[in-house]
Amino acid sequence: MQKRYLFAPGPTQVPPEVLLAMASPMIHHRAPDFIELFEQVRADLQWLFQTTNDVLVLASSGTGGMEGSVANFLSPGDKAIVVNMGKFGERWGKICKSFGVVVDEIAVEWGHSVDPGQIADALKKNPDTKAVFIQASETSTGVANNTQAIADIICPLADTILVVDAITALGVFDIRTDAWGIDVVITGSQKALMLPPGLAFVSVSKKAWALADKANNSYFYYNFKKEAESQRKQQTAFTPAVSMIVGLKEALRMLKEEGLEKIFSRHARLANAMREGVREAGLAIFPKESPSNALTAIQAPDGIDGQKVYSLLRQSYGVTAAGGQDHLKGKIFRISHMGYVDTFDVIMALSAVEMVLKDLGYPVLLGAGVGKAEALLRKSI
Amino acid sequence: MQKRYLFAPGPTQVPPEVLLAMASPMIHHRAPDFIELFEQVRADLQWLFQTTNDVLVLASSGTGGMEGSVANFLSPGDKAIVVNMGKFGERWGKICKSFGVVVDEIAVEWGHSVDPGQIADALKKNPDTKAVFIQASETSTGVANNTQAIADIICPLADTILVVDAITALGVFDIRTDAWGIDVVITGSQKALMLPPGLAFVSVSKKAWALADKANNSYFYYNFKKEAESQRKQQTAFTPAVSMIVGLKEALRMLKEEGLEKIFSRHARLANAMREGVREAGLAIFPKESPSNALTAIQAPDGIDGQKVYSLLRQSYGVTAAGGQDHLKGKIFRISHMGYVDTFDVIMALSAVEMVLKDLGYPVLLGAGVGKAEALLRKSI
Repeated sequence: MQKRYLFAPGPTQVPPEVLLAMASPMIHHRAPDFIELFEQVRADLQWLFQTTNDVLVLASSGTGGMEGSVANFLSPGDKAIVVNMGKFGERWGKICKSFGVVVDEIAVEWGHSVDPGQIADALKKNPDTKAVFIQASETSTGVANNTQAIADIICPLADTILVVDAITALGVFDIRTDAWGIDVVITGSQKALMLPPGLAFVSVSKKAWALADKANNSYFYYNFKKEAESQRKQQTAFTPAVSMIVGLKEALRMLKEEGLEKIFSRHARLANAMREGVREAGLAIFPKESPSNALTAIQAPDGIDGQKVYSLLRQSYGVTAAGGQDHLKGKIFRISHMGYVDTFDVIMALSAVEMVLKDLGYPVLLGAGVGKAEALLRKSI
Repeated sequence: MQKRYLFAPGPTQVPPEVLLAMASPMIHHRAPDFIELFEQVRADLQWLFQTTNDVLVLASSGTGGMEGSVANFLSPGDKAIVVNMGKFGERWGKICKSFGVVVDEIAVEWGHSVDPGQIADALKKNPDTKAVFIQASETSTGVANNTQAIADIICPLADTILVVDAITALGVFDIRTDAWGIDVVITGSQKALMLPPGLAFVSVSKKAWALADKANNSYFYYNFKKEAESQRKQQTAFTPAVSMIVGLKEALRMLKEEGLEKIFSRHARLANAMREGVREAGLAIFPKESPSNALTAIQAPDGIDGQKVYSLLRQSYGVTAAGGQDHLKGKIFRISHMGYVDTFDVIMALSAVEMVLKDLGYPVLLGAGVGKAEALLRKSI
């Protein structure tokens, strides 16, 4: 018997309370039970998004939310600025191109965050840019952006919207949708929301709705205006993923009970302990600056294949982490500490990493990283 | 305490075995557990679809599968024939228009099925038609089409594909994807597949793939070629709805255990008993011909509001059925007998209908419809 531990940066662990809620008998989405459920969930999502904007619920992966956030707001030939600092920034570019949007890509070396000044410069060069697409947290590299500073640049502009992929940011660290003036914020269910994958969420500002009124692109399923009209009446345009929404209600209840401030400080504390533990174990984290509190990307030491670390974590210790993507494959491995996680998730992850590296012949002082994390995470009496 | 019964035409009842499977701890979609699971599920889906074609699994409502089946195969300006015999046929037209497809709509009076000859005539008028879009079972009216006869017309054509929305047909009655030569077959999870909503499935023939190679439209999430490439490697292009796929494995196991022939004869027997019971209770079914075995649309008697029947079923008896849509609102109510249903689902539904109509002052002989169903459903010793 080998127990299994899930430390991948999505799907993340789902609390038993949520799994149980999702196992309730099916209800019909056009009936009063659903209407009551959906009203609660929509209000709680506004709390999580720190917004009074509509937060649309879509039956889709996060990528569907990203696609809708291009197709609904931009027409073919419109200009957009895309920040590419990893696989998901690259995806913004691909989606834009699929919908005929003219892309000015700010290429940031993977492992770094974007300098907001670069976005300001790009906007000066193309003041007719309709939208700027960024990641608040780039999952492929484990790097966070300074979303507030970027929002400060774009918020005052009358005809440019900021679209933030916050899929591994929302519910991890502070993203103030309304206070910072972010037009479109996207997240998915399988990250800090502690649910299985299958739902995407998108908040839409007034400025973004105005842009949608003028836009003209090809879409049907991701019709945000139609969704918003339905969802304001506690309905969805198409059949919603009912059991996921039942689980969402429970997950949001748990998150509200903890409160935003504590959720953010928990993630910050765990992420810090993970990073310090990694360093103490004689390893280096991959981010060159502003590591995301959602996950830690760890550099595979010289001569050690990151994919081998990933495989051995699973095979020898039952721990599912993630490897590197594209040109980072083999160079890094990634451990999530996002969502339903506490002290001992970090301890176990560090312990497994120490043992695997020792197994691979790397000179780790067993217990060193764990000891550092203990020092940082223990309760002071 | 009022027990609840779900007889809506989707979501349908989910077996406890499936709910329990879905409540298993989350697994990672890039890890070996998922690969093994997905391989099994893909093979079982081919069995259900009666095909050797790829059956793509999408995190989406059925409508997303419909959208992808327009966007991937047709370019703006291409011609398509759409059969509109209800709300979902109408939807084919709307999706085609969203993607710039030129639509020749065959409007069939709601409650009737399409005469395959009309499709043959429309194809003669426009031999350069790229695709014909139909419903195998139109959920809004409870009418089935003669899909085989329609396939017989289109199968021999070299450059025209048949796209079948089988969302309330597959797993209810016989749809022979390969034997009849249907190019694209779509279904959703929340119908005969006995799962919550959140997954769409699409099978794609060689002829359809050849069309996709030439097509040019705007899409990213519903990229069938990219999905097929991933799914042939037991992966998905974007994060899959993992817990739904875990449930799917169990649902397919249950369906395989019963076998296709028995699944179809069970649905036929239950549907027949429902229709005969309805008539015996002094009511009329709405379909003027070829009623679908997935659900029974019942005409509200003169002077009785169908929406009132729907509401009282819920309020007085805990039974969730469905009302009519669009211009049928108030004129019909609909009872599903699709998916995880047996004798007593039909008995309970008929009993509830008898009682509600009596409550509304309609002269029903209580027990008459139920008695008829009993006569048809009892085991002869």
